[in-house]
Amino acid sequence: MDKRTHERKFVRTFFTTPTAVEGEDDSAKMLEGAAGLSGMEAPDVWVPDNEDATAPNMRDEGAQNIIDVVSEYGPDYPGEIHPRVVWHRDSPSTRYQGFQRMLEITDPDNGAVEYIDGFVIPEVGDIDDWKKADEFFTIIENEHGLEEGSLKMSVIIESGAAELAMGKLRDEMGKPTNNLQRMFLLVDGEVDYTKDMRAITPTGGLPAWPELRHNTSRGASANGLIAVDGPYDDIRDVEGYRERMTENQAKGMLGIWSLTPGQVVEANTSPLPPQAGYWLLDADGREVKLEREDGVEVYSGNRVSLEETDDGYVLSVGSDDLEVSEEELQEELLDLLDYVPSLDDIVDSMEEFEAAKESGKGAIAMTQSATVEIDGVQVDVSRDRMWDEATYQALQTPITLFQDVYENRPDQHDDLAELYDEAVVERAMDVGN
Amino acid sequence: MDKRTHERKFVRTFFTTPTAVEGEDDSAKMLEGAAGLSGMEAPDVWVPDNEDATAPNMRDEGAQNIIDVVSEYGPDYPGEIHPRVVWHRDSPSTRYQGFQRMLEITDPDNGAVEYIDGFVIPEVGDIDDWKKADEFFTIIENEHGLEEGSLKMSVIIESGAAELAMGKLRDEMGKPTNNLQRMFLLVDGEVDYTKDMRAITPTGGLPAWPELRHNTSRGASANGLIAVDGPYDDIRDVEGYRERMTENQAKGMLGIWSLTPGQVVEANTSPLPPQAGYWLLDADGREVKLEREDGVEVYSGNRVSLEETDDGYVLSVGSDDLEVSEEELQEELLDLLDYVPSLDDIVDSMEEFEAAKESGKGAIAMTQSATVEIDGVQVDVSRDRMWDEATYQALQTPITLFQDVYENRPDQHDDLAELYDEAVVERAMDVGN
Amino acid sequence: MDKRTHERKFVRTFFTTPTAVEGEDDSAKMLEGAAGLSGMEAPDVWVPDNEDATAPNMRDEGAQNIIDVVSEYGPDYPGEIHPRVVWHRDSPSTRYQGFQRMLEITDPDNGAVEYIDGFVIPEVGDIDDWKKADEFFTIIENEHGLEEGSLKMSVIIESGAAELAMGKLRDEMGKPTNNLQRMFLLVDGEVDYTKDMRAITPTGGLPAWPELRHNTSRGASANGLIAVDGPYDDIRDVEGYRERMTENQAKGMLGIWSLTPGQVVEANTSPLPPQAGYWLLDADGREVKLEREDGVEVYSGNRVSLEETDDGYVLSVGSDDLEVSEEELQEELLDLLDYVPSLDDIVDSMEEFEAAKESGKGAIAMTQSATVEIDGVQVDVSRDRMWDEATYQALQTPITLFQDVYENRPDQHDDLAELYDEAVVERAMDVGN
Repeated sequence: MDKRTHERKFVRTFFTTPTAVEGEDDSAKMLEGAAGLSGMEAPDVWVPDNEDATAPNMRDEGAQNIIDVVSEYGPDYPGEIHPRVVWHRDSPSTRYQGFQRMLEITDPDNGAVEYIDGFVIPEVGDIDDWKKADEFFTIIENEHGLEEGSLKMSVIIESGAAELAMGKLRDEMGKPTNNLQRMFLLVDGEVDYTKDMRAITPTGGLPAWPELRHNTSRGASANGLIAVDGPYDDIRDVEGYRERMTENQAKGMLGIWSLTPGQVVEANTSPLPPQAGYWLLDADGREVKLEREDGVEVYSGNRVSLEETDDGYVLSVGSDDLEVSEEELQEELLDLLDYVPSLDDIVDSMEEFEAAKESGKGAIAMTQSATVEIDGVQVDVSRDRMWDEATYQALQTPITLFQDVYENRPDQHDDLAELYDEAVVERAMDVGN
Repeated sequence: MDKRTHERKFVRTFFTTPTAVEGEDDSAKMLEGAAGLSGMEAPDVWVPDNEDATAPNMRDEGAQNIIDVVSEYGPDYPGEIHPRVVWHRDSPSTRYQGFQRMLEITDPDNGAVEYIDGFVIPEVGDIDDWKKADEFFTIIENEHGLEEGSLKMSVIIESGAAELAMGKLRDEMGKPTNNLQRMFLLVDGEVDYTKDMRAITPTGGLPAWPELRHNTSRGASANGLIAVDGPYDDIRDVEGYRERMTENQAKGMLGIWSLTPGQVVEANTSPLPPQAGYWLLDADGREVKLEREDGVEVYSGNRVSLEETDDGYVLSVGSDDLEVSEEELQEELLDLLDYVPSLDDIVDSMEEFEAAKESGKGAIAMTQSATVEIDGVQVDVSRDRMWDEATYQALQTPITLFQDVYENRPDQHDDLAELYDEAVVERAMDVGN
Repeated sequence: MDKRTHERKFVRTFFTTPTAVEGEDDSAKMLEGAAGLSGMEAPDVWVPDNEDATAPNMRDEGAQNIIDVVSEYGPDYPGEIHPRVVWHRDSPSTRYQGFQRMLEITDPDNGAVEYIDGFVIPEVGDIDDWKKADEFFTIIENEHGLEEGSLKMSVIIESGAAELAMGKLRDEMGKPTNNLQRMFLLVDGEVDYTKDMRAITPTGGLPAWPELRHNTSRGASANGLIAVDGPYDDIRDVEGYRERMTENQAKGMLGIWSLTPGQVVEANTSPLPPQAGYWLLDADGREVKLEREDGVEVYSGNRVSLEETDDGYVLSVGSDDLEVSEEELQEELLDLLDYVPSLDDIVDSMEEFEAAKESGKGAIAMTQSATVEIDGVQVDVSRDRMWDEATYQALQTPITLFQDVYENRPDQHDDLAELYDEAVVERAMDVGN
């Protein structure tokens, strides 16, 4: 993708906090709590949310809370800080309100601006609407003597018009009449998007919107920005949150909204390669992780079964029985098996390819092999995969992300040290440079 | 989405009828039959089809039939009337023919125009081609002393160029040189689209084209229009037609083409919330509706089974057995269960949230609970869902649709009275205003 | 789709070959091997690959090899020849290098240009970047006295920016300042695209990128070009390659990259209708081909079972048992069954419809019937499908492709003669004209 214009090349987590909660003796309590987080519980981007998460009648107080809390906690906060203000493509008064609060929050006399990296603008419409927001940023920077373009702008994609605008951004960015180079995050907002698209599901659950997420990721790629998925409401459902992130990562959307510190931990960890590699078996449509027992990968479910016969094997997948020779068995299993490499494995492969390149080879075969056990029967399987420069670069993304995290989040070094042993971390920081 | 420019905010049904059938003593017979429909059998938009559904050599007679039938039946027809005329991006002569027929049909001396809401233009190409059609509408309005923009224009999206044009419409609409504000429906035409895309399937069945339907729905959202899916050929397959509509609704495409009064009834009913709510169980990948028996939700299939043991339960899904405690069982079941709310349920939740908002609360938890029975074993499950303003608005769509239908289709009040009891209908008309 | 500007209306195969391999006594060996292919092993488009497939230090030699091999083998080569040169949206030096090599390869004094149909440009960015490449083509044509626009340009879509550019191509093509009418193929490059989108999958496998393939196919449709999918790395996995092509064909992407002559044979054959038609049964989510045994279609798996009882039948699909009457059984089976027509079947249906049209009918019912046997129980099923002009045209694509292949690839007549008997081929060449 294009060169990014900002420090962070990756954002895993986008964590929103209400800016003022009624009824508490201290309405900034939640804000202070979030401001004190660090390590895996602290997001890459923290969003004091002066829009939907805060009741309308509390938002002026919320703006003041942002100023107070950020000026106090800002110096030590490990991530970037991007408050969300009110904005709406259909309401000039809402837009003016958002502008006034941004102007106040960034007033150097209030001592918060030096810790604020940018603002999040919700409910944008087509590209001209994005320019209106950008123009307010420019005016604010000029009024407060800040460098033009120094405040980053992130938008929430929650309308069909905004989805289309992502396809036009590249044509507008860099024109002398705007400073859209300040753009940072493209964040999907599926709840309002669902309203805007007038979608209906029988249960009232949110549609998956795969095309929206693809287009957001593509918009980020085409403009050197970072794509972030919207909130995952069912906080109880950790498994579902993980599956959503895996889906997103396959689309190039490496960041996601988090509603709780627990979700932040999950989302900070999810895009990092596992500590130990493992094999997956496609058990009649369900992916099952094999257990490693002294070097053997064991399947213990009953969706797949294997039996040795006098003249070969019988492999049963679901209700299908296959009589196969040993070689056919290996072929069949290879189709069902897949390997998930650890950080260690990835670094190894990259180093191996780099060495091969040094010695003038353009492509080499990487071998994966294992002994798999099903119903007590053991089978050796092995597969080669060709690596060339393109493969190498495509598989480099998790390492580049790891390096970006390690450089920008020293507060997470201890957590990473618990996940991976030191040697791997060092090699991971070296490889590919 | 943007404010619509037309009366109807929703169109559930787009019903086409041949305008002239050869061999009949009265070639307008089918047209008269369709013109006489009312209630659930009458569509929101009726399309006397003077293009594909009518043989080329019968189309002049068809145009005359439209004039005769619409001027006679128009005064009492409950839906909107939008004849389809011939048009093709690659054929000026076809376009001119379509223009001449529109000019004739809308001639005030012929007495039909006051009952005609607009025309449907097939086979459009890129946005400049849409402008050519719009220009003919403008000339016709001017020739006949009709208000500029009073005739609505709907297009059939059946080419890749037209799919792309939907992404440009917003940039062109409102320019002084056109009247594209007259745009009304974006209707997918998958058969010709499949030809245009040169797609091949082994069985000759139509591809599902999920991206096209997403882009059409998005185009409607970004331009204040209404998205309608194409014809479902297999009239016999009612179940498949319903599944297609459920899929479409999750994309924000709430309308669909109907080829028979039977399909019209299905399509008019499909987007309306059910009369009674019910629970769904994900039975190893297949969604099964649970039967309510005196307050208990009973599963009677054999894809999922449940057994009580001394130290807990064994839950079997497909070929997977889980030994779980009661609490774990409830967790597992919650993951498999989903509730489909009735009109009554939705109105309740909305009223509850509105009351909470009155009392200054920004978000409340809505609780769903049930007693589920599997293999005679009963388990109580309960789930909370957080509602905030955004949730409220996103879930309001079916109610807004219901209200739009009720206001615009008095001829369907009796049918709705059979579906829902009066009290619910009254509350549904009240809520959210 | 729009009228194509080139001879070939379809391209099934895009076969790349390294232009210079180090260490061989003759670095052009592979190039010569590929240049000698014919029949089903020869692709529709052959791509001497002077980019990724060839080591950077061998590319000057590779350019010379292209000249030598193409000037020698070109006169007899059965397909089109489109070398790929280096190019990158982010590197002017790479672009200039690509230009210099194109200039050299097309120098009439070198005797290769008359056999070269165009060039493949990788790593393009947005539409202005495409224009830069087009401008070099124009300069080259002018320098060498070739007709402007006579060299075709194909691009590899391997960035989000290029994906978006396909949506703008139609607005730029035909402007007096460019010759983009030379555009020929839109080829997806999923490996680099995955890098550009920064996508991550647990196993390191490539994401399926369905939206990219849809948008590429749409871009081809909207601009009269041809869509081609990227390489399928796992050469061992023939089944997977076939499934990918079937998926692509349903998107209108009828061509695919081939890395070996074996893959070329598969890809040349895949879009052609089968020699003999057959029935498919949806066996609890898995499509199973039925075996024809003296006129009866037999299912011999155990995912579906059928039993005759005193008062009807019991049909078991997976773990669901249905008690049904004979009529209900036929309905159920029709939902599970599908027919894959042979070339013969398709030609029959088209001829039948053409005859009906002659006799003034606009639509006719085509009947498919069969006797199906499950667990020894035989059932007669029959289904009607309505055909109108649109159906006819949408189902004509495989025939148009067959005709295009037959006209442009005489070297494949023998292979086709082995696949189909002469009579069918003759009728297939006649029908639809």
